[in-house]
Amino acid sequence: MALAYDPLFITSDKTPIDVPSPPPSMILTQDELKRIAAYKAVDFVQSGMVLGLGTGSTAKHAVDRIGELLRQGKLENIVGIPTSKKTEEQALSLGIPLSDLDAHPVIDLSIDGADEVDPCLNLVKGRGGSLLREKMIEGASKKFVVIVDESKMVKHIGGSKMALPVEIVPFCWKFTAERLRRVMEGYGCEAKLRLGEKGKAFVTDNGNYIVDMYLEKDMGDLNVVSLVSRSRTNTAPIDLLV
Amino acid sequence: MALAYDPLFITSDKTPIDVPSPPPSMILTQDELKRIAAYKAVDFVQSGMVLGLGTGSTAKHAVDRIGELLRQGKLENIVGIPTSKKTEEQALSLGIPLSDLDAHPVIDLSIDGADEVDPCLNLVKGRGGSLLREKMIEGASKKFVVIVDESKMVKHIGGSKMALPVEIVPFCWKFTAERLRRVMEGYGCEAKLRLGEKGKAFVTDNGNYIVDMYLEKDMGDLNVVSLVSRSRTNTAPIDLLV
Repeated sequence: MALAYDPLFITSDKTPIDVPSPPPSMILTQDELKRIAAYKAVDFVQSGMVLGLGTGSTAKHAVDRIGELLRQGKLENIVGIPTSKKTEEQALSLGIPLSDLDAHPVIDLSIDGADEVDPCLNLVKGRGGSLLREKMIEGASKKFVVIVDESKMVKHIGGSKMALPVEIVPFCWKFTAERLRRVMEGYGCEAKLRLGEKGKAFVTDNGNYIVDMYLEKDMGDLNVVSLVSRSRTNTAPIDLLV
Repeated sequence: MALAYDPLFITSDKTPIDVPSPPPSMILTQDELKRIAAYKAVDFVQSGMVLGLGTGSTAKHAVDRIGELLRQGKLENIVGIPTSKKTEEQALSLGIPLSDLDAHPVIDLSIDGADEVDPCLNLVKGRGGSLLREKMIEGASKKFVVIVDESKMVKHIGGSKMALPVEIVPFCWKFTAERLRRVMEGYGCEAKLRLGEKGKAFVTDNGNYIVDMYLEKDMGDLNVVSLVSRSRTNTAPIDLLV
């Protein structure tokens, strides 16, 4: 799909980013836009940094760019922390030195895409299936640059009508999916198991499943969001008899 | 270890339980006490019930007793929902018909042990390693009978100085263990990976690890408990640049 030239950046750096304007008549594909935005995000990378490497079609361009700058000698002493096995393979093929959160519990900068962004900068992540590792790694980052195009911008979370992904243990997934659906019942929620190859359940890097939550209504202000029920250990009132 | 005769029951049934008194001079082993208490708990079981079957040395006696009553024809049409692979094997060997939460999302009665109980009937579960499935199954139960001896009774959670177990994903477990330790820092917490055979990490039925949290100080009133930090996706403040 061809889009007008409108890359958006979300970053902890409040300095406006100088995004070069294309010629007025130029139409770029969505992938070209992603690449331009990703390359711009990599401008934040400095030699010696520990970097969280995101997963997905936009983050892939950023990882490519980091590999390119390393090869050109414009970046040095980078340590990459991949958010998925897929990104790990890509980074290894590019010669980016890798490590993990155990060795590097504080990350200087992470770069990744997102699936939804609301005006308060709440994000939906995980349509690419790597939400758990992304959350761990990006949550440990001093700075987090998120690259999105305007199709990801929503007034309220759930507003895109696309999936709100939740990673769950495979054990009795139907039970958990129904619990999740009921928690979000007030938003007209449908909870679907994500399928992968041959119609089998999609399995995450952590051996888990993903339930995609589709909401009829967006979630409104997340500060006053009302969830219908919560899972508790002691559903029944219990009493002590000696 | 021989103990005085003092089985305790925690149950949602507020009717006092008639626990038969042993002869005054009689000293029973802890396992015998567990068996007596477990058998008493099984008195709550009625034909036609869907039963959550706990895991551990006390629950094992309850499962044995249910199998015995089925063989004797004193119970009929029982469906057991095991909380671990170990309990599943035991129940199958006893001929107890089994199912799962997907087919039976509402359970009539669960019977299990616990590791700590405070006066508000908050529980610590999982020293046996089955905490995730126990919580799912027992949380879906209309009634939950917990069998403990008085060594499990604490004024506040963490008061026994024994482990407070947390099931975690294996991915970067050191990072997660340290995060957990910091969350509980105010209680003088040490977070240790649980080890299994040959000194390797203990792996749960769900393919996860367990971190055992040992607290110097108990947690006090859980309604006003103060945790030092929480994991958030957006550790860094983020801003939108267009």
